[in-house]
Amino acid sequence: MKLATLKNGSRDGTLVVVSRDLKHYVSAGGAAPTLQAALDNWEYTAPQLAALYAALNEGRAADAQPFDESACHSPLPRAYQWADGSAYINHVELVRKARNAEVPASFYTDPLMYQGGSDSFVGPRDSIYALSEDWGIDLEAEVAVITGDVKMGASDADAAGAIRLVMLVNDVSLRNLIPNELAKGFGFFNSKPASAFSPVAVTPDELGAHWADNKLHLPLTVHLNQQPFGKPNAGEDMTFSFAQLVAHAAKTRELAAGTIIGSGTVSNKQGSLHGSSIANGGVGYCCLAEVRMYETIEGGKPATGFLKFGDTVRIEMFDGQGASVFGAIDQTVAHYQERG
Amino acid sequence: MKLATLKNGSRDGTLVVVSRDLKHYVSAGGAAPTLQAALDNWEYTAPQLAALYAALNEGRAADAQPFDESACHSPLPRAYQWADGSAYINHVELVRKARNAEVPASFYTDPLMYQGGSDSFVGPRDSIYALSEDWGIDLEAEVAVITGDVKMGASDADAAGAIRLVMLVNDVSLRNLIPNELAKGFGFFNSKPASAFSPVAVTPDELGAHWADNKLHLPLTVHLNQQPFGKPNAGEDMTFSFAQLVAHAAKTRELAAGTIIGSGTVSNKQGSLHGSSIANGGVGYCCLAEVRMYETIEGGKPATGFLKFGDTVRIEMFDGQGASVFGAIDQTVAHYQERG
Repeated sequence: MKLATLKNGSRDGTLVVVSRDLKHYVSAGGAAPTLQAALDNWEYTAPQLAALYAALNEGRAADAQPFDESACHSPLPRAYQWADGSAYINHVELVRKARNAEVPASFYTDPLMYQGGSDSFVGPRDSIYALSEDWGIDLEAEVAVITGDVKMGASDADAAGAIRLVMLVNDVSLRNLIPNELAKGFGFFNSKPASAFSPVAVTPDELGAHWADNKLHLPLTVHLNQQPFGKPNAGEDMTFSFAQLVAHAAKTRELAAGTIIGSGTVSNKQGSLHGSSIANGGVGYCCLAEVRMYETIEGGKPATGFLKFGDTVRIEMFDGQGASVFGAIDQTVAHYQERG
Repeated sequence: MKLATLKNGSRDGTLVVVSRDLKHYVSAGGAAPTLQAALDNWEYTAPQLAALYAALNEGRAADAQPFDESACHSPLPRAYQWADGSAYINHVELVRKARNAEVPASFYTDPLMYQGGSDSFVGPRDSIYALSEDWGIDLEAEVAVITGDVKMGASDADAAGAIRLVMLVNDVSLRNLIPNELAKGFGFFNSKPASAFSPVAVTPDELGAHWADNKLHLPLTVHLNQQPFGKPNAGEDMTFSFAQLVAHAAKTRELAAGTIIGSGTVSNKQGSLHGSSIANGGVGYCCLAEVRMYETIEGGKPATGFLKFGDTVRIEMFDGQGASVFGAIDQTVAHYQERG
């Protein structure tokens, strides 16, 4: 099934069930007022939401309304946990190659993961706010899952069974703040502002054969200022599956229902700067840092700049029939003073 | 006023107002069902909670019940954000001295802060669960604040005005997992399991003159296995105030109501291993790592071990009259298989 959260002036919005074709929705209020409430009691709420979903798709739902992606907040407008992996090691390999360093062998067996801020996500059509372009604003297009409760030390199989929903995310990064922040040794904080998630979150069964081995085997489509920028396949070159990422997060502590675990920037192995861009037949990129790394490796320094105020980022995923699975994240970079 | 969350089988517990002497409580249900709900609408709920608090202290509250700290969950059993500073630079100086390294000059002007997991805190009398003693289980006794909404780029003064409540925290650390995890470059994750907070959270005005310059000027009392272990003054040697820590967290993003910001392990400057222990007239320590650093500096290697299953940690703070301000965190280390 497909779920979304409509903005209603409250902090958590209101949960709705969305039709498979993203054209209609019905209120989920009878089952759960919010997505977090649904996740808190999933065994009880999921069957009710599934029944609403079936009725909606079959045209039997009373009170079905036209669905408008731009009325959505992120599926969880605020969450109790957001932890982002870095499962596409190609991305890490490029980072290292750009500074003539080796990737430690452990990186292929022990997932990289950072704890992100989850108190105030923005909606999929909200602006990317910053106080300065000098922060080096970058997109990061990723896939993420939302889990139920997970026990400490859960196996990969148990972790797989706890995956409730799948969605897309733009994990915005402030690249120029990262070097100083990571040098301090405690990971990202100021360099990771508010993330935005896709309008719709879907259950894994909804993805059919595209969800296999706990990976999502579809291209992730990214446009920058309306131009094609990336379309790597999220199922390829993913060193760690979502089951492995969830199990990693639960290694020393329980995870509570509503935990969001991200894949890290999607990245496919490509030969070179020339061949990697979409214009030259490649699959392109899911962040500006990656093209800058190719430029550094081949030209000694980056040539492409980071995002400026007014730039737009669109992130979407289409199934085999060309239908949008999650709706589109579509954000404009803006100065925070415009937030009002 | 003083607030607590009683366990009631739900994920968020039930909010109660506690008398100044921690002897009685009344339900806060008429104002807000949970602490998060109260914080979400503080301007509206705080006056109602304050009225209940006044009635309770004056013996006018109907339905006042005996308050039992052991019935409490952490004030926020789960939170949308937990970010922990490292404001007592003495602690960092000892870490560096133990490995013959310098403290970077920027550490005295740019706060260290890590993003912690906030999805599943444990209660103040719950066990510290781990799967292995080999993880190097350590306590970290700290002070923390809970904020209201904070704008991106907030000034220190604005940040100070957003501090709603103050409490204590045991930020458990798995010391033997830290070196490998920090070497990966993305900060703490597996090395920071579930934290526990004091039974009671209090408004800053409740602390009187002990709350000055956005610091809490009282000794933080720590017992290990019923023996005195630490009593450093949390108001001394704190390089960054809570206002500065909150402003740092808000540098590039908004903070939502219910954000918890920690001080980092409380640590006072002391001369040497010999003079620093309570037995030798010092103020002792708020974590085992600190005494191990003194041992390393003076003896070449640590002698004190980390926590073992069955060990107990008690963290409390007393006012000038010897009354417990927040109630006590009192935890026993246990194997996770005992969780049932």
